[in-house]
This record gives sequence, C-alpha cells and structure tokens, in this order.
Amino acid sequence: MIIGGGFAGLAAGKALANKSGLHVVLIDQRNHHLFQPLLYQVATAGLNPADIAVPIRAQFTNAENVEVHLGRVSQVNLKDKFIQEGDIRVDFDYLILACGAQHSYFGKNEWEEFAPGLKTVEQATEIRRRILSAFEEAENEQDPKRQEALLNFVVVGGGPTGVELAGAIADIARTVLVEDFKHINPASAHVMLVEAGPKILASFDEKLSAHALRDLKDLGVDVRLNGRVENITATGVQIGNEFVQTKSVFWAAGVQASRLNLSPTVEMDRAGRIKVNKDFSVPGHKEVFVVGDMAAFELTSGKSLPGLAPAAMQAGRYVADVILKEIAGKKHDDFKYLDKGQMATIGKRKAITQYGRIRMVGFFAWMAWLFVHVFYLIGFKNRISVMAQWTWSYLFSKRGARLITERDWKLKP
Amino acid sequence: MIIGGGFAGLAAGKALANKSGLHVVLIDQRNHHLFQPLLYQVATAGLNPADIAVPIRAQFTNAENVEVHLGRVSQVNLKDKFIQEGDIRVDFDYLILACGAQHSYFGKNEWEEFAPGLKTVEQATEIRRRILSAFEEAENEQDPKRQEALLNFVVVGGGPTGVELAGAIADIARTVLVEDFKHINPASAHVMLVEAGPKILASFDEKLSAHALRDLKDLGVDVRLNGRVENITATGVQIGNEFVQTKSVFWAAGVQASRLNLSPTVEMDRAGRIKVNKDFSVPGHKEVFVVGDMAAFELTSGKSLPGLAPAAMQAGRYVADVILKEIAGKKHDDFKYLDKGQMATIGKRKAITQYGRIRMVGFFAWMAWLFVHVFYLIGFKNRISVMAQWTWSYLFSKRGARLITERDWKLKP
Repeated sequence: MIIGGGFAGLAAGKALANKSGLHVVLIDQRNHHLFQPLLYQVATAGLNPADIAVPIRAQFTNAENVEVHLGRVSQVNLKDKFIQEGDIRVDFDYLILACGAQHSYFGKNEWEEFAPGLKTVEQATEIRRRILSAFEEAENEQDPKRQEALLNFVVVGGGPTGVELAGAIADIARTVLVEDFKHINPASAHVMLVEAGPKILASFDEKLSAHALRDLKDLGVDVRLNGRVENITATGVQIGNEFVQTKSVFWAAGVQASRLNLSPTVEMDRAGRIKVNKDFSVPGHKEVFVVGDMAAFELTSGKSLPGLAPAAMQAGRYVADVILKEIAGKKHDDFKYLDKGQMATIGKRKAITQYGRIRMVGFFAWMAWLFVHVFYLIGFKNRISVMAQWTWSYLFSKRGARLITERDWKLKP
Repeated sequence: MIIGGGFAGLAAGKALANKSGLHVVLIDQRNHHLFQPLLYQVATAGLNPADIAVPIRAQFTNAENVEVHLGRVSQVNLKDKFIQEGDIRVDFDYLILACGAQHSYFGKNEWEEFAPGLKTVEQATEIRRRILSAFEEAENEQDPKRQEALLNFVVVGGGPTGVELAGAIADIARTVLVEDFKHINPASAHVMLVEAGPKILASFDEKLSAHALRDLKDLGVDVRLNGRVENITATGVQIGNEFVQTKSVFWAAGVQASRLNLSPTVEMDRAGRIKVNKDFSVPGHKEVFVVGDMAAFELTSGKSLPGLAPAAMQAGRYVADVILKEIAGKKHDDFKYLDKGQMATIGKRKAITQYGRIRMVGFFAWMAWLFVHVFYLIGFKNRISVMAQWTWSYLFSKRGARLITERDWKLKP
C-alpha cells in the first residue's frame, strides 16, 4: 500500500510494478502526479497545468499488479495494518507513506486567504488569476494611489520557490505585459521578496546565494532580507514597521509535512515530519515506511535528507527494494544518498546550480536547469510541449497561458 | 464602444484598429477571447484551456487607438449614450453590443447545478472534472448497481455541441481510458444523447443529419430522438417515462442571448435576441448596433442570420465599416451574408460538412473540419499546439489534459 503519488510514492510504485506475487494499491487524493518544481511557471502563465501534471493511473497502464485509487485516507491503523478510505477498509502487509508537505502559515492560517501558497495546480491558477487581475484592475483604476498599490507584488519566502516566483513576476511585467496596456506601465510593477533570514537560497553555497541576490536585483526585484512579516490582510502586508498596500501576496515560506490520522501516533519533528529508522521504517513498525517530504531521515553526516525531488525518488526506490528483499528473505543494503545537487532559476535567462564541487551561474546554469527540468518531466508529449513553449516564450517574450479563470463555473445572473 | 470580445466584437475591434480619429474601448468580463467551437475538446481532456483562449488585450498590442477593459457593464443608457462599468461612466458616440449567448434551461435554472452547459472555460473544466471523476468513482465503487450508474453519461441537446461532446465522451471511454482501470471496463460506459426533436443536427441537410446519426450510433452513443427531459436531479435525469441514474448530465440544449441592462428597453425575440435593422442598428438608435448571437437579424430569405462564428465575424466587420463610412459621410452597402457552411465532428475520425452544394461525410469531412478549425484559431502558437496535440492523440489514443482540478484552492484540513 502506497499513500501519495508524488515523486517518492510514484518511484516506489514503479519499482514494485510487475513484481510477481505483489499486489500494490496506490492511493492519492488527486488524479495526477505533479511536477512541482515547475509549478511557478503555471502561476506566471508560462505553462499549462496539463504540461506538468500526468494522470497517476496512466503511469501504471502496463502494470497488472498496481491499482490506483483516487481517494482520501481518513485513518491509518499501524497496529492492525489497515487503512480506511471513505467507507472502504483496505488491509496491507507493507505500507509506504508519501503524502508530501503543505505550506505552513506558522499558526496564522487566516493569512491563507490573502496569501496563497504554491503546492497544487489549483493554487497555481489562483496565483495566476491574482497576478493577471491585478494588472487589469490597475489599468481600470483612476486613483493613482490605488493604482500603485495594485502594482505591488509581495512574495514571502526566499527559498527556490519564492525566488523563482518573484523573478518570473518581475520578468513578465517587464517583457510579456509591457506593451499590452494603455493606461499603466506594467514595467513599473514593484515586486518584493521578503526573506526572514539574512540571505536568500540559504541551502546553496554562500557565493551562489550572493550571485542569485544580485541577479534578482538586476531584474528589479526589491529583496528584503531579515524581513519580518507581521501581518497579512485583504489590503496589504505588514513587514516590520512598514505596511505595503497590495492585494497580491504569495506565500513560499514555511513548509509542514502533510498529516495523516495515524493510530497509534508516532514521533514527529517540529515540522511535522515522521522520524524514521535508517531504512525509512517507522520505529516499532518495521513494515511501515515514510518517504519524501513527510519523513525526517538523518543522513550519516548528521544532516537531514533534503526535501528535493531526487532525494524523494531515491528514497521511494530504496524502500521498494527493501520490501522486495525482505519478501525474498534477503538482507537489504543501507540507504546511500546520491546528492544530485540543486538549482534555481532567476528570471528567464539566469540560474544557479550546485552539484558536488561544480558551481554554475548565469546563462549556462540556466541551460543546465532547462535540460534537467525537461529531462525529468514525465511524459514524452509534455517534454515536447514544454520545450516548444519555452522556446516560443524565449524568442518572442510572450506567454501562452495568460488566462484568468474564475472558481465559479455557473452562469452569472 | 464595443461590449464583448467574442467572434463578433473582436472582428469589429480589429476592423476599427488604427483608424485615425477613432478611439475604441472594448469591454469584456473575461480577459480572453474563446474559440468556442473547440470547447468540447477541453471538456473531454483533449486540449488545454489556453490552447483555445487568447488574451483579448494581446490582440490589440499594436493598435494605439484601442483600449481593452476587463469589466462588467452594469447599465447601458442608449438615450444619453453612456455605459456604466462599476463606478466608471464611459460615454460613447457609437456602441456595438456583442455579448453573445448563454445556455438557457427553459426556466428550470435549478437544473444547472446538475447539468452544466458548455460556454466558458470554467464550465469546460467542470465537465472534464465530472467525466474523469465518474470513472474514478466507478473504479472505487463496490456496489455493481451504483457502479453502472456512475458509467451513465447523458448529454442533452442534439445540436453540434451535444453531438461533439457525446461523440468525444464515447471515444475517450473506448480508447484513451480503456486500459487504465483494473476494476471497471471504461468501454462499457453508456453515453446517451437526448434530443427533443425528431433528428440530430437539424440545421444540416437531411442526409447529412441521418449520416451523423449512424456514425454516432457506430461509436456506441445511445441516441434518443423525440426525448423529453422532464427533470434533472443530483441522482439522475427523467427522460419521458424513464429515469436514468447518473451524476453526469451535460446541457447543450437551449440558448438564450446574454442580457444587458438597457435603458430604454428595446424589442427582443423569444430567445432574448435584440431585433435589429438591415444594418444591425437598433430601431430608434442608429448609432447602436447589435451583432453576433445577441442579434435577431433577418436575412432577405426571411431566415435568421445563423448563430455561427463566420456569421458573427462578418457582422462585426460590416458594422465597423458602417461606422467608418458614416463618420466619413459616405453611404454604406447592405449587409451580404456569405454562407461559409457548417460542420460537426462525430468522434475522432468522422465529421459532416456542408458548404453550399458541397456535402462531405466521413474521414474527408473530418480532415476539412480539422483544417478549418486550426486555420481560424487565433495565434500561431495555439495552432501549432493544437495540431501537435491532435496528431499525438490521433496516433496514440491518448489525451494530454486528463486533469481533475477542484474549485477550491485552499489547503484541506
């Protein structure tokens, strides 16, 4: 039984597909696997949702032993080894928990309304709606003060998601949108990135982080380091002593592991991640494994296994192998984390990448970023589509998905 | 002043672009022009919303004299020649009303909840969500009766939209989805098309209509001619004496012109269309024109100008020309409708097309349909993207946008 079809769960499922004697059930509350590293591109009208999402079910068309359920797990009983999915009880011999992480508002859940996070397709199209609508409203606004406020954009959180989102907003304001308005100058949009700590992209090498900061400033992003977000309301955001009037605040700050109703309860760290053994099993439940962003796994270096897609995929495959070995009565090896490095883009032509001792910045890093992200995207058609859209967007400074869609589909009176 | 950025309004706007001495304001409540003839492809996961929608604003990037407002017109004063857009009053010398049509539930608006229509992007993704979710729920359902009910799909209305939607649902059930489920056989889905009249595609030549009926039946669609929909509820639809259990009912039956708050009021026909003069002007208001699905225009043959995209575009261009001639003090010619014929697809490889005396059926009609729909789609990139997706879908029987998205973007507790 696998709960979650993200990078970790999907990798585990694929590693268990077509293994004789095994019956695999993969449950997810969404019908699609989402390539989250490119979600900011959907939020900024660069890609279509379907370019970075594939039906989980379609990944197992040829795996007779894997069934996929679209459903929500209401309870996991670790002792009696079953899960409850609505009215249905499903028993398991082995369980892999891979439900990922959600945004955390540090106890201020009332901020969510005014500052959506970027973890799902729905959130990405909501952010896209807010960004594009802000320019439209500013175009119609006759009061200069309110017009200026509408062109303030605040991204909270200086990790890769925040940096990429802020960079992309600054980029589309100055390139894609700049010629389409008659009353406002979209290039005058004020994009702020607020980071609580002393540097952006803190998980990167110091020099790379400083380089990214310069690139971001060159793009016109107003980066506020050591910035404390005190409050977010319908009219703006309080950063330290300053109140920035805006309707466009986006949240890329805290992350918290997704919660499941487990009984008995298990030990978690402060971010809600489940503490696991050296083989990702839950202490006291050797047939239950936790992988991906939901797990707190300590590397031999003493550091935590990072919340990156390659790490999640490696953990998923490893756990599948542990289960197969155990069934076959063989011993399994220890998990060896192969650090594939990390990368982040800044705007349309720059990036930083770090892989072992190799550090890259600027255009070549951006090319590497491009190659890796297209290569790991699932689906031949999606790769072609994303490449075509990026080429087009790069050459003509246009974006193909400038679509404002509403949440309500019903006829308006 | 142009209200509405559909085929008629956009054609008028483009014809007035960059004409010296004119200032044009185009208002729409959506930011995008939608290629409605392909909307059923979005509803059946074949195309992305952004493939068939382009920002209205981007159509006028190089037209200095055209400004585009995203806004909702609350009132139109024909006498004092101004419109009210929220708090803003905008005066006009000439007005073109082109707000199109909406679905009509013949006074049964409570049916909308259970039977969405197909006029907007939001409705298309809602229908897509319902279709894909029905298969997912059926896969999880353990009661065979309820499982069968989940695989019933009812399309109401045998015009082009209804025929294309029913054909596409039957097609994806038997090709795209057929291998991806383990507990159900998607090919056993029961797709019904209910038409109140004695034939489908009644606006076509009798022989073509009969041919389409056979093609549709070959696809496995259960066509109910002279079928009366008496009621639609959360659990199913009452057709004459038969109650069909289903959660998937889609509405492609009645159409009603969009309403605007006009003062003074003007004369309308039963479908809510405004009766216009031979030059599309409103009787008594020679500087106000109505074009597209909102207008009841009588051809010299005594028939109404049909509600088709080419007719709307011709009317939009004609009215722009009338205005330009009037400003220049010249006389304008009468409107000459150039009948470009009509076409409808049935499933993935067949169509019927009618153009003057030329009638086509089957594969060649489908190729013609394909060519025309790609040719008239706005945007080079969209054309390439649609062709690529159709080619891929045709060759591999896969669909690229099998995405279930929810209306709510917030974190679930």
